[in-house]
Amino acid sequence: MIAAAARSAWIAGGLSLAVALLIWFTPPPEGLTVPAWRLFAVFAAAIFSVIVGAFPIFTASVLAVAATVMTGLLKPAQAYAGFANATILLIVVAFLVARAVVKCGLGQRLGHLVVSLFGRSTLGLSYSIFLVDGLIAPAFPSNTARGGVIYPLVVGLAEAGGATPDNPARRRLGAYLMFSGMVSLSLSSALWFTAMAANPLGAEIARSAGVTMTFGSWFVAASVPTLLAMALLPYLLLKIMAPEVTATPDAPAAARKALTALGPLSGGERTVAATFVVMVALWASAGTFGLDSTAIAFLGLGVLMATGVLTMGDIAKEGDVLATFIWFAVLYTISGQLNEMGFMGYLGQRLAGALGGLGPLPVFLALVVAYVLLHYLFVSQTAHVLALFAVFLDVGVKLGVPAVPLAFTLLFASNFFAVITPQGSSANLLFTGSWYLSQGELYKLGAIATVLSLVVYLVLGTPWLMLVAR
Amino acid sequence: MIAAAARSAWIAGGLSLAVALLIWFTPPPEGLTVPAWRLFAVFAAAIFSVIVGAFPIFTASVLAVAATVMTGLLKPAQAYAGFANATILLIVVAFLVARAVVKCGLGQRLGHLVVSLFGRSTLGLSYSIFLVDGLIAPAFPSNTARGGVIYPLVVGLAEAGGATPDNPARRRLGAYLMFSGMVSLSLSSALWFTAMAANPLGAEIARSAGVTMTFGSWFVAASVPTLLAMALLPYLLLKIMAPEVTATPDAPAAARKALTALGPLSGGERTVAATFVVMVALWASAGTFGLDSTAIAFLGLGVLMATGVLTMGDIAKEGDVLATFIWFAVLYTISGQLNEMGFMGYLGQRLAGALGGLGPLPVFLALVVAYVLLHYLFVSQTAHVLALFAVFLDVGVKLGVPAVPLAFTLLFASNFFAVITPQGSSANLLFTGSWYLSQGELYKLGAIATVLSLVVYLVLGTPWLMLVAR
Repeated sequence: MIAAAARSAWIAGGLSLAVALLIWFTPPPEGLTVPAWRLFAVFAAAIFSVIVGAFPIFTASVLAVAATVMTGLLKPAQAYAGFANATILLIVVAFLVARAVVKCGLGQRLGHLVVSLFGRSTLGLSYSIFLVDGLIAPAFPSNTARGGVIYPLVVGLAEAGGATPDNPARRRLGAYLMFSGMVSLSLSSALWFTAMAANPLGAEIARSAGVTMTFGSWFVAASVPTLLAMALLPYLLLKIMAPEVTATPDAPAAARKALTALGPLSGGERTVAATFVVMVALWASAGTFGLDSTAIAFLGLGVLMATGVLTMGDIAKEGDVLATFIWFAVLYTISGQLNEMGFMGYLGQRLAGALGGLGPLPVFLALVVAYVLLHYLFVSQTAHVLALFAVFLDVGVKLGVPAVPLAFTLLFASNFFAVITPQGSSANLLFTGSWYLSQGELYKLGAIATVLSLVVYLVLGTPWLMLVAR
Repeated sequence: MIAAAARSAWIAGGLSLAVALLIWFTPPPEGLTVPAWRLFAVFAAAIFSVIVGAFPIFTASVLAVAATVMTGLLKPAQAYAGFANATILLIVVAFLVARAVVKCGLGQRLGHLVVSLFGRSTLGLSYSIFLVDGLIAPAFPSNTARGGVIYPLVVGLAEAGGATPDNPARRRLGAYLMFSGMVSLSLSSALWFTAMAANPLGAEIARSAGVTMTFGSWFVAASVPTLLAMALLPYLLLKIMAPEVTATPDAPAAARKALTALGPLSGGERTVAATFVVMVALWASAGTFGLDSTAIAFLGLGVLMATGVLTMGDIAKEGDVLATFIWFAVLYTISGQLNEMGFMGYLGQRLAGALGGLGPLPVFLALVVAYVLLHYLFVSQTAHVLALFAVFLDVGVKLGVPAVPLAFTLLFASNFFAVITPQGSSANLLFTGSWYLSQGELYKLGAIATVLSLVVYLVLGTPWLMLVAR
């Protein structure tokens, strides 16, 4: 068995290398430079190697960055730029802060509390994640920072449900809750104009195509498809992921008992709760006062360390955060450079060009579907919006698609496609870094959830948009 | 006891905050801008808090970066720039690569081999580190990369001597060997023109003051004081650090027996050895072929992961590497910004100005001592050379000090002062990250070793330089 697995990993690794070399030595299509094409070879081979199970994403990324620098495709300063990216650092620090919430017991207490209210079923737990996230989202322009709040709650729920690393018999329950957290962040971002940094950015771009978007008009346009997706996806994912337990009629009573047994908040819990309240307040007002979300996270981490809630020993156990930091920074950089070299824009334009002669509705559908599928190549939602939104909107309008519904649908898609790959959004990483979900499962579930959202937004969202936002 | 320790940590923390506020709200001396002065307040308070035992350096750094960004002293992009620094990434990756050398058993085997040759005494082990390092140094323009070779050897020696985390009774032995590695790197860098990137850089600066330095003239000038320091420091540090064992007459025989028991190289050891040979060859030829040392390290790490010598489980245990990454990147950045804001140059000029009216010899001595002491403020040898070397050389020459001996002595000092603080050189970090040495010990030993080297280079090096290099 092990020998067979090792052999198939070697074959998969060889295949990945073959993909890289094949693209590398093929002449680039007209309109693309050789460096852009070769960088695509490295990036495509790295993603391919992960999907076919040759390497963990960490290994693929490390080899990819070595290849891009040693072949001279990227200068060292370009290739390593992602490590200094404020959003990526925010994830790293949010991971360490979340550790404190779990360690001091506050996460589990919150979990018990939510279970005592909504815990009659696993589905109820999932809905409670969507509810909390959806309610706080308009105050969080950084969905990654919001993940820093939701993730400890999800860990608490998983632990309250017995889904801990020493109890693999509840692994699917943990996986379901984690993935619910990811999907929830992607949909709450679509619901509110201010729940994701790329939304106002997209609105700015749309303005030059004559489309005006405000907080209010966005919410009206988003409400029907997004709330429907929020209602449907927890249920559909429950059926698909089939966690070990679904009906837990006694759970609320047990949770209340556990809460009583826990007694009042411990000193550590008080410190973490106070630190967290301040962090959330600062994060929520970051836009207003021009504060940097990452610095707020650093401050919180510093306070938790200085008060002794977290120790150097705790940090020493967080090597997987280092692994996430490295692979995400590397893929983020390569994808960004691919974009800067014109690869993404080229793809968009080629695709848009192929649509001439179709009617407005087929063009609309084809553009949205292609826009979503292209997110397989991106390691940032914002970069995707910057690279492709204007091109797709422009082509659609020229081919007769009404601008307003197209603009809204593409920007909603820019949120819900976040879960299509583990690296599709920085907000995913807090959830994908846990032991519950393998890379393979994440790709599979990501594709399913994205298709489900896509269907909801196209089938129910499009008529609604034609009604309210022309 | 614990309550008393906690109380004294709180007092030390309060004192550190007081230092920060006191400097912050004092008007800056004439010639310094308010931002430069306030950044100094944050940096000085952070270092102070570590020295008085208020916080681990990680906590101090995290609080410092939060303070600089949230007060608007630094823009986020400035404050986080260090995370993308290629040398800092090189340390991070070298740590992970070194883990493979230790894990597969090759480090211990090398340790046994060295012990079988030089292991009759602890002093012999230390000298063997200096010997290996001194011989390979001219081929390694990056002392950090060279640390990536020496560090696994030192770990192997420590383990062969029983200095493992589960045997605290050999802690001082491990500490002595680790600190020997640090001092060795700082002296081997001074011995060879090409053993440290800042040497040719300093030579370039010296050229504009009319001083010509070549590989040969550097070696002649460096040889007497450096070889003397290499001979003396292992012995003096042995007396000062007093490891638990010094004479081990039976150790070589035991090591030979252990080597026999180990048998031939395992598959993992072969893979690591082959990877390492290629990495060393690439590192040594990096300058010639324009290769990036960090990319070479990434390549090695990727190969070790792809071949399964290292696993994701191994990386997950390396959280302390993440901690080192974070604190060093932060301090590096703040120190660099302090320099860019003109703080370092101002200090150098003020100090130089105070020396007018003294004779050439007192000026020479005062300049060298001040130059060394100022390294407490720097988190990079190269930055120190760039910031202060030209100023100090210029002032000395104007006050009658012969240019050649002064230039050489300052550049030698730029190497041996590396150990003055744990963050004084990126090459230190591989050694300081181990469990053998506390931050307090590192500051104490760093001061002692720097003073010892300073005395050797001033008392024996100066006459030698007057003889061979006028």
